[in-house]
Amino acid sequence: MAGPTDAARRKHKVTVVGSGNWGTTVAKLVAENTREHPDLFEEDVQMWVYEENVTIAPDSPHYDAALGDEPQKLTKVINTYHENVKYLPKIPLPSNVVANPSLLDAVQDASILIFNLPHEFIGNVCKQIKGHILPYARGVSCIKGVTVTDDKVELICEYISESLGIYCGALSGGNIANEIANELWCETTIAYNTPPCDQRPQNGNGTGTQNGTSNGQQDGHFRDSRGRPSATELTPLPTDYPPLDHAELLKLFDRPYFTVSMVSDVVGVSLAGALKNIVALACGFIEGHGWNMTAKTAVMRRGMLETIQFCQEFFPETIQEMTFWESAGWSDMIVSCTSARNWRYSKMAVERGVSLHEIERTELNGQKLQGISTTKEVMGFLKARGVQGKYRLFQAVEGIVDGTFDVENIPQLFRS
Amino acid sequence: MAGPTDAARRKHKVTVVGSGNWGTTVAKLVAENTREHPDLFEEDVQMWVYEENVTIAPDSPHYDAALGDEPQKLTKVINTYHENVKYLPKIPLPSNVVANPSLLDAVQDASILIFNLPHEFIGNVCKQIKGHILPYARGVSCIKGVTVTDDKVELICEYISESLGIYCGALSGGNIANEIANELWCETTIAYNTPPCDQRPQNGNGTGTQNGTSNGQQDGHFRDSRGRPSATELTPLPTDYPPLDHAELLKLFDRPYFTVSMVSDVVGVSLAGALKNIVALACGFIEGHGWNMTAKTAVMRRGMLETIQFCQEFFPETIQEMTFWESAGWSDMIVSCTSARNWRYSKMAVERGVSLHEIERTELNGQKLQGISTTKEVMGFLKARGVQGKYRLFQAVEGIVDGTFDVENIPQLFRS
Repeated sequence: MAGPTDAARRKHKVTVVGSGNWGTTVAKLVAENTREHPDLFEEDVQMWVYEENVTIAPDSPHYDAALGDEPQKLTKVINTYHENVKYLPKIPLPSNVVANPSLLDAVQDASILIFNLPHEFIGNVCKQIKGHILPYARGVSCIKGVTVTDDKVELICEYISESLGIYCGALSGGNIANEIANELWCETTIAYNTPPCDQRPQNGNGTGTQNGTSNGQQDGHFRDSRGRPSATELTPLPTDYPPLDHAELLKLFDRPYFTVSMVSDVVGVSLAGALKNIVALACGFIEGHGWNMTAKTAVMRRGMLETIQFCQEFFPETIQEMTFWESAGWSDMIVSCTSARNWRYSKMAVERGVSLHEIERTELNGQKLQGISTTKEVMGFLKARGVQGKYRLFQAVEGIVDGTFDVENIPQLFRS
Repeated sequence: MAGPTDAARRKHKVTVVGSGNWGTTVAKLVAENTREHPDLFEEDVQMWVYEENVTIAPDSPHYDAALGDEPQKLTKVINTYHENVKYLPKIPLPSNVVANPSLLDAVQDASILIFNLPHEFIGNVCKQIKGHILPYARGVSCIKGVTVTDDKVELICEYISESLGIYCGALSGGNIANEIANELWCETTIAYNTPPCDQRPQNGNGTGTQNGTSNGQQDGHFRDSRGRPSATELTPLPTDYPPLDHAELLKLFDRPYFTVSMVSDVVGVSLAGALKNIVALACGFIEGHGWNMTAKTAVMRRGMLETIQFCQEFFPETIQEMTFWESAGWSDMIVSCTSARNWRYSKMAVERGVSLHEIERTELNGQKLQGISTTKEVMGFLKARGVQGKYRLFQAVEGIVDGTFDVENIPQLFRS
C-alpha cells in the first residue's frame, strides 16, 4: 500500500544490537519483514553478536563429525546454519539475519538501530558506538527498565537518545521471547514519538505521519518524553529515505504472530515495563503466603494504580492513561506476575520462609533480582520527595524485602 | 468512628434475598458486620431460603442418628447448626444469620435488601415482594449481568429499582464465593449512587455523604444510571435512621478478608460484569486452540477495550474510565477468563473440535452457558444500531459460536 515517495532512493538499513534469545527473536521477525517490504528496507538485517566459541552437540543437525567437539565461532555458526544454537536453539532464522561480531561494523550506515541486550550493557555499548553511527539514525529500545536515582527517573530510551544524539522509542509488552520465536501469537506495544524534523507532509501514498501527538515545536530541538526541549539537536532523516513514522515501524515489527500497537507515550510504556517488577514481587509474596488468584488480581490492580499515579505525579505533561490498557501495561503486568523471574523467586522466598536476599544467594548464585533494585531505586526517589506514603504497595514490597513488613499485612494496605 | 446522628432512633434491618453459595457467603460477612456495628444495624440478618428438604450425611458432625436419613427442612438445619449444609457446606455461619423460608416475612421491615440469587429468578422475586417492602428500602444487587434486547440495555439493579420503586446499587468483583467463605482475602467493588433525597448534610461525626458524584438535582426524582430523571419518585430514607451512603455500606460489606471499594459508576460496574462473559468465551477458544497466556492477555485487553467502548458509546453521560481499573473491571475479567464456567467450556469445545452447543448438550444437560446468551443479546443490540463492525472481538465470538468464524483467525482482528 504505502510505498516510498518518488524522492526516496535509499532504503533503511536495520541493525539489531544484541543477540540473546529476545534479541535473536526480534532479529528474526524484523528480517522477515524487511524481505516483505523491499521498498522500505534493505533486505539484510545486521545482528551484533558478542563473539564467543560454541560447541555443537553430536545430536544437533548442525554437528559436523569432521570438527567434532572443536569450538566454533558463534557468528559463523549463525551465518552458516541460520540458527542461534546458543541463545535461541531450534529456531530457524531467515538467511538475511547476518550475525556480525563487530559492533562498529554492524551499526555502520544503519538508519534504524534496535537495542536489545541486557540493561547493564547499554552504557558501554552507547559509549562504543557514539560517533560511529549515522547522525540521523533512529532507535527502538527493547530493553525494559528505567534508571532511577534519588534525583531523577531516566528512561532507557532517553538515555540512548541523549548519549547518542538520536531519537529512540521503546518496545514493550506481555511477551515471552521463546513463544514469539515459535510464532505463537501475542501482542506488543511500540512507543515512538516521531520527531517533528522527521515528519513528512501527508501525500497520496499515505506515507506521511500517522502520529497522533506530535512533539509540537518545529525548532529542530527534539522534545523529550516530558515535553522539554532536549539539549540534543536532532539531525533530520534525509528526505531521500522513506519516512520513518508509525506506519513504517508497523511494517518493520508487525507479524501475523506478533501484533504491534503504536502509541506515542514513551514514558508510560517505559515506566509500566519497569514498575511492574515491583508488583511481580508483591504477587509472588501473596501467592507464596497461600492466597489465590483473586488476591493476586487485587495486588496487580493496586500495583497498576500506583504505577499510573507515579506517572501522573512525575510526568504529567505527556502521560496518557490509555497507555496502561496497552500490551505494555495490562498484559505485561499479568504475564510478569504469573510466570516471570521476580514473581517466581519471591513466591519461593515466602514458601520457604527465607528472605529474598537468601534466595539470591542460594538460587541465583548471588545474582540480583531486578525487582529488588527497582524497588529500592523507586522508593529512594519517592522518599527524597517525601511522598513514599502515597505508594503503599511499593512501600510494603520494600518493607518485605527488608524484613520490616509482614506479608500477611498486605490486605490492610487496601483499607480506605 | 462514624455513629448515627443524635436523631437516629431506628437501625437498619438487613435482608439477603437468596441463599446459594454466593448468597450465603454474603449473608455471613454482612452478619459479622452487623454485630460489629450495633449503632447502625440490627444484629440479625434475615436470609431468604427457597425451602427444600435435605438429608444430612452420616459423616457430618450434624448427623443425628435418631433422625437417620429422614429429610429435614434446610432452613431448620441452617438455624440449628449455623451451616448451609447444601450450598455452603463446612462453613460456620454467625448465629445472627437467620434463615427464613418466607420471602415476604424475610423482606418485611428491611431497610437494606441484598439481592443475591440466580439471574433468572429476579423477575419473579420482584413481583412477589412489590408492595410488601418498606417504601424507602434500598437495594444492593450481587447479581451480575444485564438484560439486553435489540431496543435497550437494562442493568439488573435498574430493573430492581424500577420494578420495586426503590434505589438499588450493584456489587461486583473478581470474587470466588467459596474462597471468601473460607476468608481467603480478595477485593470487590460496590457501585452505589446515593439518591439525593438520602443525602444528609455533613456533620462532625462524618456520617454525611461520601459520594463523589451526586445525582444532581434534588427534585425528588431519582436519576437513573444514564442521568435521566426516573419515573420512580423515591421515598426518602427517614431521618431517624442512620444515613445510608458509601461510609455505611463499607461498614456493612467490608471485612478484613473482603476489601470493598465504593464507586458511583453503576453502569460501568454492571456492564463490565456482564460483557466479561463474552471475553471469557474468547479466552477459552484461544487457549483451547493451543495459544498461551500471552495470547490470552491480548484477548482480555481487547475485550476490555470493547467493553469500555460499549459503555462510552451508549452511556456517555455517567461512565468513568477509572471504573474499569476496579475489581469489578480488571480483576473480574482476569478471574472470569482463568477459572470460570464460560471459559472452561469454550476451551473444552475447541479442544474437542465440537461446537459450544454440543458442549451444552453433552456436558451441561442442555443448560445454557450465560456467555452465549450475553453474546447474542449484545450483538443483536449492536446490529440494530449498525455498529457491530466496531466490536470485532464480540462479533468474532458470535461467529465462532455460530460456526461462521474460525478461532485461528482471531489474531487477524487485532491488525490495525
